[in-house]
Amino acid sequence: MIPYQIIEKKSHRQTLSDAEIKDFILGYTRGDIPDYQMSALLMAIFINGMTTEETLALTKVMLESGEQMDFSAAPGFVADKHSTGGVGDKASILLAPILAVLGIHVPMISGRGLGHSGGTLDKLESIPGFNVNLESDAWFELVIKEHVGLIGQTGNICPADKKIYSLRDVTATVRSIPLISASIMSKKIAEGIQGLVLDVKTGNGAFMQTLDDSRALANSLVSIGKGYGVQTTALITDMNQPLGLAIGNWFEMKESAEGLQGHGPDDLMDVTFALGAEILKMANPDLSTAEALAMQKRTVDDGSAFEKLKRITELQGGDPRVLDNLEAYPKARFSEVIRAPQSGYLSGIDTMALGFAGIQLGAGRRVITDEIEYSSGMYIHHKLGDKLQAGDALITLYTNDEKAMSEVSRQISNNFSFTESNPYVPPLIVERIE
Amino acid sequence: MIPYQIIEKKSHRQTLSDAEIKDFILGYTRGDIPDYQMSALLMAIFINGMTTEETLALTKVMLESGEQMDFSAAPGFVADKHSTGGVGDKASILLAPILAVLGIHVPMISGRGLGHSGGTLDKLESIPGFNVNLESDAWFELVIKEHVGLIGQTGNICPADKKIYSLRDVTATVRSIPLISASIMSKKIAEGIQGLVLDVKTGNGAFMQTLDDSRALANSLVSIGKGYGVQTTALITDMNQPLGLAIGNWFEMKESAEGLQGHGPDDLMDVTFALGAEILKMANPDLSTAEALAMQKRTVDDGSAFEKLKRITELQGGDPRVLDNLEAYPKARFSEVIRAPQSGYLSGIDTMALGFAGIQLGAGRRVITDEIEYSSGMYIHHKLGDKLQAGDALITLYTNDEKAMSEVSRQISNNFSFTESNPYVPPLIVERIE
Repeated sequence: MIPYQIIEKKSHRQTLSDAEIKDFILGYTRGDIPDYQMSALLMAIFINGMTTEETLALTKVMLESGEQMDFSAAPGFVADKHSTGGVGDKASILLAPILAVLGIHVPMISGRGLGHSGGTLDKLESIPGFNVNLESDAWFELVIKEHVGLIGQTGNICPADKKIYSLRDVTATVRSIPLISASIMSKKIAEGIQGLVLDVKTGNGAFMQTLDDSRALANSLVSIGKGYGVQTTALITDMNQPLGLAIGNWFEMKESAEGLQGHGPDDLMDVTFALGAEILKMANPDLSTAEALAMQKRTVDDGSAFEKLKRITELQGGDPRVLDNLEAYPKARFSEVIRAPQSGYLSGIDTMALGFAGIQLGAGRRVITDEIEYSSGMYIHHKLGDKLQAGDALITLYTNDEKAMSEVSRQISNNFSFTESNPYVPPLIVERIE
Repeated sequence: MIPYQIIEKKSHRQTLSDAEIKDFILGYTRGDIPDYQMSALLMAIFINGMTTEETLALTKVMLESGEQMDFSAAPGFVADKHSTGGVGDKASILLAPILAVLGIHVPMISGRGLGHSGGTLDKLESIPGFNVNLESDAWFELVIKEHVGLIGQTGNICPADKKIYSLRDVTATVRSIPLISASIMSKKIAEGIQGLVLDVKTGNGAFMQTLDDSRALANSLVSIGKGYGVQTTALITDMNQPLGLAIGNWFEMKESAEGLQGHGPDDLMDVTFALGAEILKMANPDLSTAEALAMQKRTVDDGSAFEKLKRITELQGGDPRVLDNLEAYPKARFSEVIRAPQSGYLSGIDTMALGFAGIQLGAGRRVITDEIEYSSGMYIHHKLGDKLQAGDALITLYTNDEKAMSEVSRQISNNFSFTESNPYVPPLIVERIE
């Protein structure tokens, strides 16, 4: 098969065969097909799309390009949760220990910050010593014994996806439903899981900003999971404001710990428990949703989930004492409280702009070589629908970079809008897809 | 300007500014932007198109990336002809000497075979010693003194186009009206011409197979030419069968010589003279079409055009004696006459398939490093609408490759179709665009 002809087919909206997709992707992964041909095909896919069958074939070849975990030895249900990414979304950090305490095995492979969106690995690494680069064997053993292990994508898992992802990132071909679907699902299926819940974000802080796009992505992800015999459901959840109040790596780690200690923000806890209930009901179909929610809440109330977070931190090389002394963590050099410029109801937040402002403060990378400052970030003091008086604290900024503080502090309040009357606030959990 | 954002704009069907196009193209030409980003942009342009303004901006930056000839010193009209490419199209080789004899200066920069289509340079090089790689100065002097010089694109002319063209060729982004338009017109305008006639082929042996596409391309080319103050017209001519009877480099050179000696195939002569009349009328608006046709015919009848072809051959290092002894040219080792499998009117020819069969016989390159065999090719013995008896000679094949002969001879007659009643034959000159 000639790469040229495969590119040509897709550029003319024709459907690629399984064999064509396999040959092209493996040829590229081996280095036989150059970057410039892959990027032409990626752009053709980005614009012209892929059928469900093509997306499945792409997922399959990415999956089979690397190692697949086998947790059939695990004495219980093996499952994971994945979010499509947003601002302030730290639900994975709460959910993994909660599910582990409840007997679910959670072999969680997470990512780093991307675009305006934070990454679970970066948040975990804000704990001194926390190692997300465990060897496969050590991770496997953690998942079996402790029911949870938190790592990043290794070179052995979906190498085709890893190579293609880097190219998408520089050729403006990231936001494509078939490419996102194959990338996410190949990695999740490689984990050897039986159940998967997807948190598909929608709104102005999500990669998919319209409900239609979010729904299409959710359907695509769920159908691939089912095609592989993985029980898969998706919740479409609102990302028209940050999830919780904290944005930035240590701040989000801290808010997660607080959540597991029983005083997390309502929206964060609600999303976490709703996602967890999906997994618990897959593991035990007799369970009601109310029971699944209550079980999780008990792991918070009795401290067992927080203990699990500390234990996994310790076993992965991190210092669990920082979780017991949240206020002792090193502070950023500069902080500034930004106040509401007017009175009224908080009616809108430019969530993506907040994400990028966080990066500017040092909470994320502009280029891949940037160092993250774990103490940089921000806290919002209000959620959509809250009534404020002019001068009330709106958001507090933290950074070590005086220049960034000056720039961000001057503009950040422009990302908040106010109305005189009680505004519409989108529901937190918009839709469930199964 | 960030290359990523320019790619993203075009992938979302947004219009690029002149500055964005310039920065991207020059950045790529300098080597600052990698192939994989250029190929992503090319695919986005291929699928989403470009506005007239974008195409003009692309032409301008390609043109200004290199040297532009200045023939203002030439004592007369400076003009050229360009064909979008087909099978058996050797009109340039006839027209250049005819126009030169009639006082037009013809600084003709031609190309090599591409896809199924032959190239003027390859045909000229079938004459031993013919040098199409003259230095700029030598070529310039030929055009001034002899009124014609026949060369290939040098590194100094439109280097941006040259680099982008190589990438289009391997990323399936060749057949794009804005990309074709900018590529052709930047090179033609760089010749420093005052007049240009375009032969835009249409039909099953053309790059643009439908009349709509051919018309769109012709309009795009003509509007760019006019935008640069070059008098430009286009003839849309039929390519549902080869032009003339000969396909293959020496065979086409030979048919051109025969045409200038007064016994060329009617269709080839008609297209040549029609194109020539466009140029002659640009140079002298008082001329009628009938006069312009008659002037050209006289250069054939009195032998002056043929003498000009021999003179330019000699001045460009070629051996003009081969043009006087056409039958003495070395023959291919194998030849085979393929006969009509049935009686009837010749109603259809798969012209592109004939072009590719010619390449298989050795008349063109499958990969850039292939050597051309100048004596390989084929002659068709009939044109569309001819009435044949089963067993009449249909096409004769010539090659040095016994295996290719066996493969091509077995299948070639499948590319001809027959009807019992007199079929529709498309007109040779379909439309004139000005």
